[in-house]
Amino acid sequence: MNGDREARMALGVLVEPGSRELGQLVRAEGAPVALDCVLRGVGVSDYLAGAVRARLTSAGLGAGPGVAARIVEGMTARADRLGARIVTATDDEWPPSLDDLVSASREGNMLRRDTDPPLALWIRGAGRLGDVLERSVSVVGARAMTAYGEFVASEFAFGLAQRGWTVVSGGALGVDVTAHRGALAAGGPTVAVLACGIDRSYPTANAGVLERIAEEGLLLTEWPPGTNPHKTRFLTRNRVIAAATRGTVVVEAGSRSGARNTLGYARLLRRSAMVVPGPVTSAMSVGCHVELRVPGTVPVTRVDEIIEEVGPVGELADPIQGAARPEDVLDPLQARILDAVLPRRPRTAEEVAAVAGVSGREARRNLPLLEELGFVVAGDAGYRLAAGLDVPRPPEDG
Amino acid sequence: MNGDREARMALGVLVEPGSRELGQLVRAEGAPVALDCVLRGVGVSDYLAGAVRARLTSAGLGAGPGVAARIVEGMTARADRLGARIVTATDDEWPPSLDDLVSASREGNMLRRDTDPPLALWIRGAGRLGDVLERSVSVVGARAMTAYGEFVASEFAFGLAQRGWTVVSGGALGVDVTAHRGALAAGGPTVAVLACGIDRSYPTANAGVLERIAEEGLLLTEWPPGTNPHKTRFLTRNRVIAAATRGTVVVEAGSRSGARNTLGYARLLRRSAMVVPGPVTSAMSVGCHVELRVPGTVPVTRVDEIIEEVGPVGELADPIQGAARPEDVLDPLQARILDAVLPRRPRTAEEVAAVAGVSGREARRNLPLLEELGFVVAGDAGYRLAAGLDVPRPPEDG
Repeated sequence: MNGDREARMALGVLVEPGSRELGQLVRAEGAPVALDCVLRGVGVSDYLAGAVRARLTSAGLGAGPGVAARIVEGMTARADRLGARIVTATDDEWPPSLDDLVSASREGNMLRRDTDPPLALWIRGAGRLGDVLERSVSVVGARAMTAYGEFVASEFAFGLAQRGWTVVSGGALGVDVTAHRGALAAGGPTVAVLACGIDRSYPTANAGVLERIAEEGLLLTEWPPGTNPHKTRFLTRNRVIAAATRGTVVVEAGSRSGARNTLGYARLLRRSAMVVPGPVTSAMSVGCHVELRVPGTVPVTRVDEIIEEVGPVGELADPIQGAARPEDVLDPLQARILDAVLPRRPRTAEEVAAVAGVSGREARRNLPLLEELGFVVAGDAGYRLAAGLDVPRPPEDG
Repeated sequence: MNGDREARMALGVLVEPGSRELGQLVRAEGAPVALDCVLRGVGVSDYLAGAVRARLTSAGLGAGPGVAARIVEGMTARADRLGARIVTATDDEWPPSLDDLVSASREGNMLRRDTDPPLALWIRGAGRLGDVLERSVSVVGARAMTAYGEFVASEFAFGLAQRGWTVVSGGALGVDVTAHRGALAAGGPTVAVLACGIDRSYPTANAGVLERIAEEGLLLTEWPPGTNPHKTRFLTRNRVIAAATRGTVVVEAGSRSGARNTLGYARLLRRSAMVVPGPVTSAMSVGCHVELRVPGTVPVTRVDEIIEEVGPVGELADPIQGAARPEDVLDPLQARILDAVLPRRPRTAEEVAAVAGVSGREARRNLPLLEELGFVVAGDAGYRLAAGLDVPRPPEDG
């Protein structure tokens, strides 16, 4: 019983998910050695050693030499009884997207200290996890949603499922369960990522839907059976929702909504951070609008716009009335800067500034925007005009 | 009768406002010479000459040598009868902000060809135009507003007026007149910029409010008395609304709303382009949301946020729950780039890239964002850390 997979399973029971200390140890020494360390309380922090001891005691597992094997045996039997399976990074169906949490953790995550990837997932449902998540979007939001949020969550999830996208959410009351239901209604797979044991139907009101999700999609959690949800677990869980999907859509969110936390993880992981605007008179849209003011957040109003964000290049939303016309976008300064960019020979921002007769600062600020709009291309040697670009040039004035 | 002021007055009657050709001629030769040219049809395009001839004929003004004097005399008498005055760029109360339209026109305006500043304004109301517009915001939107738009326009205009800001709008049905009414209710000045003669109460339904605006604020127009509104005049008029104010707020807008045109002018003139989000289910917010997807557009949900945009530095909105926390904003790449910026010695984007171990392209894309967020300052020699910046640095990892 020193296999990598079994060690990960045991560690998933012994240590609260997300631990950066444990994740670093596993990556440095391998899971079997890490398991040995935490069981013996050697080479780990007092905090981690104490937490593991306390868990062994409270679970009545003792601390003898065979404890790891007993845990794995118990987990396997329990999974069988619950119609669940346990998946770790050693399994084929493990979604590589979750491993992005490693670098998020390593690079100094400012949202939360312990955001390491899960070590083991408990799963109910027939689909292979990695496949089901291949084209997925999370749709999350307030528990106390309004009729507006219910309508939008339902429509968006239905539309995403119809277009072949898996809708991921947290199985909670409000926007979450409405999104799951919308996807189920379209006959699409949906994934509920829980913050409690796979045997807990939490919240009770959603027991029926959660059961349907297990039949038609996937229920999954990092916590072993018997674990109750609590606030910090919801926050820990949110990193998985964000990491598992190509982008997160917040439908409605009050100013302290947990959905904002999920959106923060999406940004941290460089996934699309999308927000549905709502009435400025609604407390359930306050969090959405605060997020909308964060640079890079994309407002989405239709399923097409979500798919344009997360889909492969080419799946563009039909523009509404030529929305993104360059003439709506470029101001005179930008137009002048664009005029100073050549089709072939790259120019640095400073050269562009000199030719355009603008300050270096103005050129440096606007060239990335022109790049984003597709007017210029940035290479290692500087900026040049995008290929095939036909910028409308104003006639020369006297 | 060859004074600059009189010539501008006469030209304002003879030529449809906004003419770039006329504006260039006035700037190159002065208004008196320009007037002589258009009257004699010399040194101007056939189009302009023909338009002036047609106008002289239809107004029964003839073409004799005294025509300009007759026009000015008639205008002055008419203004007196209407309780109006005529203001040109030669008058003290002329708002310099309108002259920004010169560069917008010169730099190749892609929204509309003829966006030169007005030559003469007809004004009713006691306040001096330049003073009334000193701290002003335009609040515009759909004629076919919903109850939501009515609520927001009314609240925002009331709040802006209470805080000492002049609300400028177009006097139209819907959002415009609601904004005017909201400002009047707070006892603040409000300015209606019309697309017809100052003697026309258009739309008729707003006659009472327009009269109140003339008493408490200012009614103004570029068109001489007797001019009827039509679609192109609304579009021409919109440039004045955008230029006269520090920013434009679109409250509700269908996909083809003229308010989007005003917002386009605001961007062109480097004024704040602000949009009120609304329900994605509302056709009257479709235009708002399309605009919101244009980079640089600011979503606003409260009066405080509008004032933060257009007010002097320091008038910041109270954050909602620490909305703009850096940890919500920076992704790992940006954090790494920020780490490579020094407090004192400026580094170029390329030096930052080398130190951070990222590509030059990544550095060039993210440094302007970090600058916008107030983390770095850009000077001629490159980027350095903003003064007093206390970036939360993650503890070093092994």
